Amino acid sequence: MTLILGIDPGSRITGYGVVRDTGRGCEYVASGCIRTGSGLLHERLQIVYRGVREVIQTYGPVTMGIEKVFMARNADSALKLGQARGAAIVAGAEEGLEIAEYTATQVKQAVAGTGGATKDQVMMMVMHLLKLTQKPQIDASDALAIALCHAHTRSSLIPHGLNTARSRGGRLRL
Amino acid sequence: MTLILGIDPGSRITGYGVVRDTGRGCEYVASGCIRTGSGLLHERLQIVYRGVREVIQTYGPVTMGIEKVFMARNADSALKLGQARGAAIVAGAEEGLEIAEYTATQVKQAVAGTGGATKDQVMMMVMHLLKLTQKPQIDASDALAIALCHAHTRSSLIPHGLNTARSRGGRLRL
Repeated sequence: MTLILGIDPGSRITGYGVVRDTGRGCEYVASGCIRTGSGLLHERLQIVYRGVREVIQTYGPVTMGIEKVFMARNADSALKLGQARGAAIVAGAEEGLEIAEYTATQVKQAVAGTGGATKDQVMMMVMHLLKLTQKPQIDASDALAIALCHAHTRSSLIPHGLNTARSRGGRLRL
Repeated sequence: MTLILGIDPGSRITGYGVVRDTGRGCEYVASGCIRTGSGLLHERLQIVYRGVREVIQTYGPVTMGIEKVFMARNADSALKLGQARGAAIVAGAEEGLEIAEYTATQVKQAVAGTGGATKDQVMMMVMHLLKLTQKPQIDASDALAIALCHAHTRSSLIPHGLNTARSRGGRLRL
């Protein structure tokens, strides 16, 4: 029984999802969005930082998956995303969580069985796997998909004695 | 007498500089570099975050200037810079500092009198203004230049009753 956090960082909305890995599948625990509002930059980054810490303190996950970004539309949006991502990662690190990152393709592959799945297909699979009866908000759904991917990657490593998501999730380098 | 922190964030080296604004100019207090090493991403971002908080706790600045980035070489380097910048800004915010950002042109203009000054010219002016007898490391020098720019902008606002660096330094928006 491991509690797993998924984070989908964004400059306006950071999605989070918490699932419980029972060893025979995952159960839904919680999900939602941290909205940064329209304040000053440092206030908005602080909302991401404190929001992620609060989610961790509330639900007690021991490990965290975060979406890895390969390409942003442009340098400006990459900088903004990077700032939010930095705030979220530091929050996880300060709470002592193990952190792994996954590309969008890895997440789609793990949840929907194909790296080419659409957003809608991913959401349908998230709802199916976690037995959700209502559609979650899209950022929360993406975060739950990341948590499921992280759970899947971790559990597939355990039988081989590699109980660390880092080795498959990609070593997180700056 | 106000203690002012300047931060020049980077994915490998984050420079910091602390100056004391006496009302008749600035005096050197401290400067240096926070090196993130070669660990995992979250460990490196945590080094930036904790390093900036430690500098604030050690020297007690009440306000912080940080370089604003208009253009990065590409989306990948913008993302990395953004992550380090996010970690540094959250550190300042968590320590309760007022935070303002300045473009490289504003920093050069304030320190060397022209927005087209070279890196060397900026360093020479930093050394001259702060009566330094030894060349600081380049990231530390850039951070001191940002601190001087922040001091200059703040003090030039006080006579007009606008004692906030934010209004001139640019409202920090995500």
